[in-house]
Amino acid sequence: MSEINRVWRLRKRPVGELANDVLSLEEEAIPAPSEGEFLVRMNYLSLDPTNRIWMSDMVQYMPPVELNAPMRGLICGTVKESKHTGFSEGDIVSGLGVWADYQIGSPATMNKMGDTGAMPVVDAFGTFALVGPTAYFGLLDVGQPKEGETVVVSGAAGAVGSIVGQIAKIKGCRVVGIAGSEEKCNWIKNDLGFDASINYKTENVAEALAQACPDGIDVYFDNVGGEILDACLKLMNLKGRIPTCGLISGYNATDPVPGPYNYGMMLMQRLRIEGFIVTDYMERYPEALSHLGKWMGEGKIKVRQDIFDGLENALEILKKLYTGGNQGKLIVRVEDVS
Amino acid sequence: MSEINRVWRLRKRPVGELANDVLSLEEEAIPAPSEGEFLVRMNYLSLDPTNRIWMSDMVQYMPPVELNAPMRGLICGTVKESKHTGFSEGDIVSGLGVWADYQIGSPATMNKMGDTGAMPVVDAFGTFALVGPTAYFGLLDVGQPKEGETVVVSGAAGAVGSIVGQIAKIKGCRVVGIAGSEEKCNWIKNDLGFDASINYKTENVAEALAQACPDGIDVYFDNVGGEILDACLKLMNLKGRIPTCGLISGYNATDPVPGPYNYGMMLMQRLRIEGFIVTDYMERYPEALSHLGKWMGEGKIKVRQDIFDGLENALEILKKLYTGGNQGKLIVRVEDVS
Repeated sequence: MSEINRVWRLRKRPVGELANDVLSLEEEAIPAPSEGEFLVRMNYLSLDPTNRIWMSDMVQYMPPVELNAPMRGLICGTVKESKHTGFSEGDIVSGLGVWADYQIGSPATMNKMGDTGAMPVVDAFGTFALVGPTAYFGLLDVGQPKEGETVVVSGAAGAVGSIVGQIAKIKGCRVVGIAGSEEKCNWIKNDLGFDASINYKTENVAEALAQACPDGIDVYFDNVGGEILDACLKLMNLKGRIPTCGLISGYNATDPVPGPYNYGMMLMQRLRIEGFIVTDYMERYPEALSHLGKWMGEGKIKVRQDIFDGLENALEILKKLYTGGNQGKLIVRVEDVS
Repeated sequence: MSEINRVWRLRKRPVGELANDVLSLEEEAIPAPSEGEFLVRMNYLSLDPTNRIWMSDMVQYMPPVELNAPMRGLICGTVKESKHTGFSEGDIVSGLGVWADYQIGSPATMNKMGDTGAMPVVDAFGTFALVGPTAYFGLLDVGQPKEGETVVVSGAAGAVGSIVGQIAKIKGCRVVGIAGSEEKCNWIKNDLGFDASINYKTENVAEALAQACPDGIDVYFDNVGGEILDACLKLMNLKGRIPTCGLISGYNATDPVPGPYNYGMMLMQRLRIEGFIVTDYMERYPEALSHLGKWMGEGKIKVRQDIFDGLENALEILKKLYTGGNQGKLIVRVEDVS
């Protein structure tokens, strides 16, 4: 066990694009678990759009990270020392932790991963911990797509969006994905079976959407907000639904971001726009995991992960999320599970 | 029977505030009913915010009125001549008609009013035809308020808003109304029993709301959109609901109107924003009318109507809706029911 514990601490609330001085990497002592806790060695750190929200002091669904506190993150790690009877040295756990080599866990924040079968732990962590259930509940519970309907998803090559589109295909929908590069568009169309793809960086999204959605849009799964939301609103069918999973286009903004100019469509077409957070569905995780596992086993859902090495690179890697520089679920590998 | 039929025709799509040349009043022949139709003498014309939408060519929930066609409106009238076996001379009918002394009706667009008991026909028409059921279904079905929750309504002294607030009180909620004059604020607070009122013309709405809603907002019944929606979004509680009935603040706008700046709250607080139109609830009208009738009989719901005389004044009277110049449901009286 290394004697050094590297800990990323939040130093500034981010303003605009993520700057290098919002976090600092410190060398600190390895903490000792109290009764009912255990010490976790991080194996993998999940980087997600919500990290940027936690750094800010905007109103949010969890308390923001306090200034100078360790940065919060979804982690997967190995128990090194346990003072909790339910956890033993060597257990693989995942849950809400911090960006640090070593940290204290407890059942309040972390669960055992369980047997991942033939799937490598990093893949199971990347898919099942957050993004798979987010796609599953957001699309099916909030969006309620019906066979034959048209589903549009933004951030379509992203970790959540790519699964959303594949579930919508399983449910018999026409699926149109919006992504930010030719490579991403080709991937969702050719490898994942989306019916159409739109490159928002090179195409006129409103025109391309109108072409790709000749019967209008019934469900728009929103990961981004902004101009793409506006373009979708314009094409929404009567009683259309907009599950709102993220508004990433506005997270780095320094000025107030106006809501959609076509907001009036929600009255004219009697739309339902509904925000959701996967943590509200914790009780129903087994349902999502059993379906996702089955579909992945049948090859109906494919995932791709972008795994980068080194906790010291976490901030640089996180920036990719807001520039579209990643391809698939972003994971930082600190040390592979042995 | 007068030989002259005055008909308001749409001449221009309105841009900005309603101008006098968007409609013209013509003298025309009285139409003759074909088989299955009847001739209706207008008694009352309902003026509603949606009239402005029908004049425009924005995307909307019914086809816009065609240029040079008679202006569409909700009317109450008396059958003067019938070629439909289900309707007889003297029947009082209401439904979707046009702004004209005489017009053709059929069961596709108009229904018999039925017995209004002790209630004058004009009151029953004003309350039951549109605004009462709108308030009823919008608040209860879409908003789903629970006892003890805080309900905020804008346009609170308006025809729909005043009923929304009173139903919310019946359901045991704390009710805060936003209106545009001291007189209106006093009326909803002192006569209708709202817990608090805010005059958006003289008060800082965001500050006044924060004071009036110490436990946040659970349901915001939106009639206006714009800055008031933004102020409410900021205070919405987890899993709050925003039934969207109207966005009147934007109807007269000439430039694109941005959506709410606090749109991100719908993600952070997992809000549900849902547009609705009362016509979607036609099948359930009896349920609404029986409850509304009972509550009105018990004095738990009070309404006030603003009745103006003369079809020739309809356009001038309609303008009051967008300037806050009316007090209660706007009705044009052409000729009282005899």
